[in-house]
Amino acid sequence: MQQPADHPGHPAVPHLTTALTGPLLELERRILDSMPAIERWFRLFWQDHVPPFYGSVDLRNAGYKLAPVDMNLFPAGFNNLSEDMLPCAVQAAQAAVERLCPDARNLLLVPERHTRNLHYLTNVARLVRILAATGLEVRVGSLSAEVTEPTVISLPGNEQLRVEPLARRHGRVGLFGHGDDPESTPGAGFDPCAILLNNDLSAGTPEILRDLRDQVLVPPLHAGWTVRRKSHHFAAYDEIADEFARLISIDAWMVNPYFARCSAVDFQAREGEDCLAESVDHVLTRIRAKHKEYGIDEQPFVIVKADAGTYGMGIMTVKDASEVRDLNRKQRNRMAVVKEGLQVSDVIIQEGVPTRERIEEGTAEPVVYMVDKYVVGGFYRVHRERGIDENLNAPGAHFVQLAFAGACNLPDCRALPGTAAPNRFYSYGVVARLALAAAAIELERTAQLLPKASSAPDVAVAQ
Amino acid sequence: MQQPADHPGHPAVPHLTTALTGPLLELERRILDSMPAIERWFRLFWQDHVPPFYGSVDLRNAGYKLAPVDMNLFPAGFNNLSEDMLPCAVQAAQAAVERLCPDARNLLLVPERHTRNLHYLTNVARLVRILAATGLEVRVGSLSAEVTEPTVISLPGNEQLRVEPLARRHGRVGLFGHGDDPESTPGAGFDPCAILLNNDLSAGTPEILRDLRDQVLVPPLHAGWTVRRKSHHFAAYDEIADEFARLISIDAWMVNPYFARCSAVDFQAREGEDCLAESVDHVLTRIRAKHKEYGIDEQPFVIVKADAGTYGMGIMTVKDASEVRDLNRKQRNRMAVVKEGLQVSDVIIQEGVPTRERIEEGTAEPVVYMVDKYVVGGFYRVHRERGIDENLNAPGAHFVQLAFAGACNLPDCRALPGTAAPNRFYSYGVVARLALAAAAIELERTAQLLPKASSAPDVAVAQ
Repeated sequence: MQQPADHPGHPAVPHLTTALTGPLLELERRILDSMPAIERWFRLFWQDHVPPFYGSVDLRNAGYKLAPVDMNLFPAGFNNLSEDMLPCAVQAAQAAVERLCPDARNLLLVPERHTRNLHYLTNVARLVRILAATGLEVRVGSLSAEVTEPTVISLPGNEQLRVEPLARRHGRVGLFGHGDDPESTPGAGFDPCAILLNNDLSAGTPEILRDLRDQVLVPPLHAGWTVRRKSHHFAAYDEIADEFARLISIDAWMVNPYFARCSAVDFQAREGEDCLAESVDHVLTRIRAKHKEYGIDEQPFVIVKADAGTYGMGIMTVKDASEVRDLNRKQRNRMAVVKEGLQVSDVIIQEGVPTRERIEEGTAEPVVYMVDKYVVGGFYRVHRERGIDENLNAPGAHFVQLAFAGACNLPDCRALPGTAAPNRFYSYGVVARLALAAAAIELERTAQLLPKASSAPDVAVAQ
Repeated sequence: MQQPADHPGHPAVPHLTTALTGPLLELERRILDSMPAIERWFRLFWQDHVPPFYGSVDLRNAGYKLAPVDMNLFPAGFNNLSEDMLPCAVQAAQAAVERLCPDARNLLLVPERHTRNLHYLTNVARLVRILAATGLEVRVGSLSAEVTEPTVISLPGNEQLRVEPLARRHGRVGLFGHGDDPESTPGAGFDPCAILLNNDLSAGTPEILRDLRDQVLVPPLHAGWTVRRKSHHFAAYDEIADEFARLISIDAWMVNPYFARCSAVDFQAREGEDCLAESVDHVLTRIRAKHKEYGIDEQPFVIVKADAGTYGMGIMTVKDASEVRDLNRKQRNRMAVVKEGLQVSDVIIQEGVPTRERIEEGTAEPVVYMVDKYVVGGFYRVHRERGIDENLNAPGAHFVQLAFAGACNLPDCRALPGTAAPNRFYSYGVVARLALAAAAIELERTAQLLPKASSAPDVAVAQ
């Protein structure tokens, strides 16, 4: 795929060697032709729903279908976005901040606890830069017990990130300095109007963040993995995909992977295997029917993964129900625990969408980033050792920037589908925004699910 | 000025040979240091006021001051913006359309009447492209009597623009086809929810656009030159500049040119010369005092121009009051009439702000473009034959694109002022947005000034 000649200003778009066949081109054509209807649909949707502050979506492009397979509400990886996309990200963040608290002067960013991962910290620094460019004073407050005083971390490219210990006073969290009098008046130190989580709360809902007094916390605590379930998201996505499919007259399956869910699974105790096997079989059967309907010559597979999992942990590819009955000890251990030692008990069985995209001799999948309701960039996650039916979010993956700026909101309608990168990227942006819409619905519905804490401490430091 | 090393993705920023001296660097530093306060101020301002749909601002950078000298509410020249800025422009247009009519499916663009200026028509095509990318069906309806049927105009770069005759039916304007039954039901043809004017109405307020039934017209008719006066704008700007100056603790003069106004001037009949001469003298005296206060060694000058003028017509540079008394016939003729033969009777006498910027051996001034409340790009207007104290909007001017994307909302706060292009451009973006805020106030205040029409025709074609 060549960079279209009429977009000379766009930085290099990776040369995709994707061998695209009929159906996706049809889907692409349909999406392009329906652009006015699609954009109007989104415009009206966002009149009634609040977009998440930000999010990233993993997409898989199978040639015959294009679907989201994961939606992250605490996206890392902003450092992988093209520098060219930053102005759009800042503009989108301005809209998000306006929605959050228009009279904000400062914002506190709460990152993941691990303080040694330079890639992750570079993401945090990038987020700080984007948010600061909206005109906020942005500081970073850590939940980590290891951060006991302000710490400056050196990052590649001469950047620095200052991380400070999070503290709570009078029902508000902020940065109140080391050794300050905890009885001093509210407003001392850095007492933000808004707190942005870049921590998915896999370790549980921190008491320090509960029941804040007049502070806005986004994403909300129930977006954390203590409460969140992929199956809640994809249940909401089912409805969005159905509505979208009616809007542009396609089969919703073209943009939606089937899924099933098993609860009370204990991989180590070998409990719940029947549910797993039955669900795998059920989903495989449904995929086979669709493959037959559309004449797709592919072996169906499903992805079995933790319903509350993240970080590409606890994920396996399954092509037959018998496989989930014959797990060896190593496989069971691998599936049983995800990030921060969280035990897996709920499992989602999701239709596997093979990726047909290859970049630099690796298997690739696009990841699309959004802030507020806007697409602000993306990249390809590329893995040289993984197959087209495997999870690519694994050690050994690398990232190829997509300046899909012009791409995502400027399709070149004159180009034939399949020949111009902007068209493909517009489709990616549309499907990613469908997942974002589903996340908005999901968060509305799960707002009641946050377990009550014993009682929030009024004076505390990050545990 | 070098492109900063940490913005490798930014397309070339012109090398400015500006010899910047103390005060502007101070102003720049002050603006950068006050960024959180400034952005918060804008955020709160736009909670209470509606931004114009779009606008462009001519700035002059004198080294010791940086000020808007003209604010265009019907900006042409979108074709001069960098292609890289388009995604941001689309994002901003999405916000504007949302504000205008969220359930819009289509939008009618009404351009200037002159259909032969390919530069202008390329601007119209660019606007169509930006607006269409928000998901609207966009068509172009002309007020020109010469456009009697749909006409496809070929533009450079293989582009085409279709222009159709504007018509009115049942109190609504749209494109109702050639020879259609005028008595047919409303909704036939192209019956838009919103109409965007890219015509400054120098020729008067078209009857066909008055009192539309359930259609939104932006900018409103009173933004056209029949009603609009530069002096109304700069009166509003006085207040905005004062507020801004208090906010960041500067002298408002640093961002605000003095002005005075004379009405009932008739250049050909030599009426109103006393007012002109007194006003010139008054403004020159005020400038001299400021020059003395700041030790600026420059000869003060004023720009005398039509208060309702545009297109760089009817403009002269004056350094002494006697000059406006001694106009020869040619000068008087040149000042008496502006675009579309509009007679000049109101005149604004504006402090001249010399431009210290030079590009490619020409005198240069930045022009900043905004859509909704966002800066979406800009360029330098460059003129090789004009001096630093002259109007550059004249035949012979050319344009140098600024991809001041990252620039306008991503200042590089680590860089020293004067060394990094993004800092200067952030300042430009701030001052341009101050003019936009003044335009919002101006339009609120002038809403009552539109003269009533005799009666709007219910069935009519463009006159």
